[in-house]
Amino acid sequence: MGDLEQVLDTLAGRQQASVEDLLAFAAIPSVSAQAQHAPDIQRAADWLAARLRQAGLETVEQWPTGGHPAVYAEWLGAPGAPTILVYGHYDVQPPDPEDRWRTPPFTPTVQGERVYGRGVSDDKGPLLIAVQVADAYLHTLGRLPLNVKFLFEGEEEVGSAHLPALVTERRERLAADFVLSADGGMWSAETPSLTVSARGLAALEFTVRGPAKDLHSGRHGGSLQNPLHALADLVAGLHTPDGRVAVDGFYDGVTERTAEEREATRQLPFTDEGYLAQTGAPEVYGETGYSTLERQWDRPTLELNGLWGGYTGEGSKTVLPSEAHAKVTCRLVPGQDPARIPGLIEAHLRRHLPPGVTLDVQPSDHGARAYQLPTGHPGRRVAREVLEAVYGRPPLEVGMGGSIPVLETFSEVLGVDTVFFSFAVGDEDIHAPNEFFRLPRIQEGQQAWARYWMTLAELRGATASREARAYD
Amino acid sequence: MGDLEQVLDTLAGRQQASVEDLLAFAAIPSVSAQAQHAPDIQRAADWLAARLRQAGLETVEQWPTGGHPAVYAEWLGAPGAPTILVYGHYDVQPPDPEDRWRTPPFTPTVQGERVYGRGVSDDKGPLLIAVQVADAYLHTLGRLPLNVKFLFEGEEEVGSAHLPALVTERRERLAADFVLSADGGMWSAETPSLTVSARGLAALEFTVRGPAKDLHSGRHGGSLQNPLHALADLVAGLHTPDGRVAVDGFYDGVTERTAEEREATRQLPFTDEGYLAQTGAPEVYGETGYSTLERQWDRPTLELNGLWGGYTGEGSKTVLPSEAHAKVTCRLVPGQDPARIPGLIEAHLRRHLPPGVTLDVQPSDHGARAYQLPTGHPGRRVAREVLEAVYGRPPLEVGMGGSIPVLETFSEVLGVDTVFFSFAVGDEDIHAPNEFFRLPRIQEGQQAWARYWMTLAELRGATASREARAYD
Repeated sequence: MGDLEQVLDTLAGRQQASVEDLLAFAAIPSVSAQAQHAPDIQRAADWLAARLRQAGLETVEQWPTGGHPAVYAEWLGAPGAPTILVYGHYDVQPPDPEDRWRTPPFTPTVQGERVYGRGVSDDKGPLLIAVQVADAYLHTLGRLPLNVKFLFEGEEEVGSAHLPALVTERRERLAADFVLSADGGMWSAETPSLTVSARGLAALEFTVRGPAKDLHSGRHGGSLQNPLHALADLVAGLHTPDGRVAVDGFYDGVTERTAEEREATRQLPFTDEGYLAQTGAPEVYGETGYSTLERQWDRPTLELNGLWGGYTGEGSKTVLPSEAHAKVTCRLVPGQDPARIPGLIEAHLRRHLPPGVTLDVQPSDHGARAYQLPTGHPGRRVAREVLEAVYGRPPLEVGMGGSIPVLETFSEVLGVDTVFFSFAVGDEDIHAPNEFFRLPRIQEGQQAWARYWMTLAELRGATASREARAYD
Repeated sequence: MGDLEQVLDTLAGRQQASVEDLLAFAAIPSVSAQAQHAPDIQRAADWLAARLRQAGLETVEQWPTGGHPAVYAEWLGAPGAPTILVYGHYDVQPPDPEDRWRTPPFTPTVQGERVYGRGVSDDKGPLLIAVQVADAYLHTLGRLPLNVKFLFEGEEEVGSAHLPALVTERRERLAADFVLSADGGMWSAETPSLTVSARGLAALEFTVRGPAKDLHSGRHGGSLQNPLHALADLVAGLHTPDGRVAVDGFYDGVTERTAEEREATRQLPFTDEGYLAQTGAPEVYGETGYSTLERQWDRPTLELNGLWGGYTGEGSKTVLPSEAHAKVTCRLVPGQDPARIPGLIEAHLRRHLPPGVTLDVQPSDHGARAYQLPTGHPGRRVAREVLEAVYGRPPLEVGMGGSIPVLETFSEVLGVDTVFFSFAVGDEDIHAPNEFFRLPRIQEGQQAWARYWMTLAELRGATASREARAYD
């Protein structure tokens, strides 16, 4: 039995233990957005560091940041072999709205071939796969086939604000041929896919203020601007009737894809009917002139994520509220600068501010450029080969509507590309109630990661991957 | 010492006890809009019934309704004298937003010449004045100068939905020459005023639904309608740029006031500058062509009272939410039918519904016609006389932007008018955090109510007031 086969055998024998790993990890409510969960974030970091040590990694560290700590580990016993940096995050989204969960968000619950719980798909399940594969190699063969560094952060869900400084500070420790990301996701459970692009991100919040205090809407209604009306006017004015973003300068630098690229997207096995069945939306809607996949992968957006003001409880309260609020995120494509977008939106809001209210804009440091993995990158070629070996057919190459802000950091600070290699699936309700992860994906992911490391180590000229950028 | 002087003397000696009455009553969180407070509503009704008995009223009853009970009491020992029906309400608005209160909303707190607490101004303080005056008459003289019926309801803040049925059922018991309302309010603490009109009310809520569940706004943003965008479009479309309501048919039946009436309003001691100082709003805003007071008293409105959807907590959550919500109330003027308005708004919303979402409208049974007190009504003439005696100058006659739904019931079922005789002031932050009531108004109100009853009883031809409607 070859080395790889022994490792795969070890992994196959550990499926129950692998699921139990995830149940324990996902039971920790490591919600990075909410201050009350700071102790849980620390518990999750401690748990993960202990799990890495248990895997046989001798160098395991927690790296403080200006926010939540990162967990780092390394195994560098293969001189001359490639070095990869495995990325993932141990923080999770808030569970809101909690009353829509059928099982408690932080009591991970197995039902059939799925486990339900906040973070099981994004990103605790996929992250653990990489750790479990290292564990299997080290306990079966006593070594890994290549050099591996693990960097798991605790702030991905709040925009990885402190990671650029950390990666800059630790750039020598983090040096690698490329990043293999355990975050991301495949687009369907049936067809293997490889994500080769991600949209960027820019964010802001704004508040509209009218009277200094809440007023009685009977007594005062009609004689003062209602901040809720002003907010609605502003939000309505952010898009044109054809679904484009109305903000001046928003599309600066955005280029159209080539006819071949658009045709390749059209050839993917995707239908609007299937998409509507999956999401339960009554119809597709978006920028005129683009297909649904183009709207998701290739076109920038401006989306409201939250809107609130006045009385939102049971029954009626006749209030003319003092203020109203909105949270906005934009998804960006190559050519757009995330640092410039919030200012453009603020200028638009100020230019269109209705009378009788004032505007307060809070830009976010939450930002990321869009990303594109070069076509000839060796990490991309190995990924195609491994996915074909595990699933019996070559993967589709797809885009990603979401953003992973650290891609830009890895590219700019470490000078390396990132290969997405997550076994989450896009329909697993991440960021929503009843998030789930498919249990069979644990074993598939472990096989794929084990093969990936071995294949990359064996690849003649793998060390040339530092020049990967020149391939495309 | 005459009868009236003896009663006034008794009241003057009971100021501390009167304040303690209010502290005890306002400590009961009788929030009618929230089901969790149903036991508190009952406690408030019990407290009030006990207080009426303590005042010396022998007939005190609780009348069940389809919702919260009404408290009724009567003293009918003056055959041949007029009979008045005293109206008020013992329920209060929700305290939201609770974190904006400087003292706990249901721990009424005296600071200087004010008492702070939910309901102290609307309507527990003004209501108690009437009870305390009956108490002083009965304990000083052993009788009242005229026949008095008290009807205190527990659903005014949720639209008095069950009162029409109750008043209809009890119409014989409730028969009176007119209603003297302890609800309402004067428009400033310095100048006595008499409210002679009130706007009506219509209400609805609506929900915009897109995908069947919350989605990741990175993955799905741009390819499905965002319910928050659709909600903002709908809300923005409810008004025209000149501040008018854009709903077809909304102004049907609304007449312009005469030049003299408009001139009388212009003569009132009111400035926009003072109003802005009072409310803290940056500027006045409303329907083009009307003054601030006209916009408050004489023009109908459509106001959003609440707007919400998506993530509204701390930090960021990149969600494309499944639904978004709005609460709307309209203030109506004579000529508008509250039963017709929600249907007009729903038709407008459906006609302007953006693509990609569905609409669900929940009309409210919360409704009231606008009200106008006839100029020559004897209850109005006595009120002018009494206010001049207490404050040393004749009251201003003013309108009221708010609504008291029961006015229509009293007019339609009992065939009588309503005189507002409340000693609340319009700046006392009712329906808002830090609601307060001015303690000196307790004694002023008691003097005025005591005089009112005596004056009305002595008024030659007072029994002709049943024909009051013919006066105007």
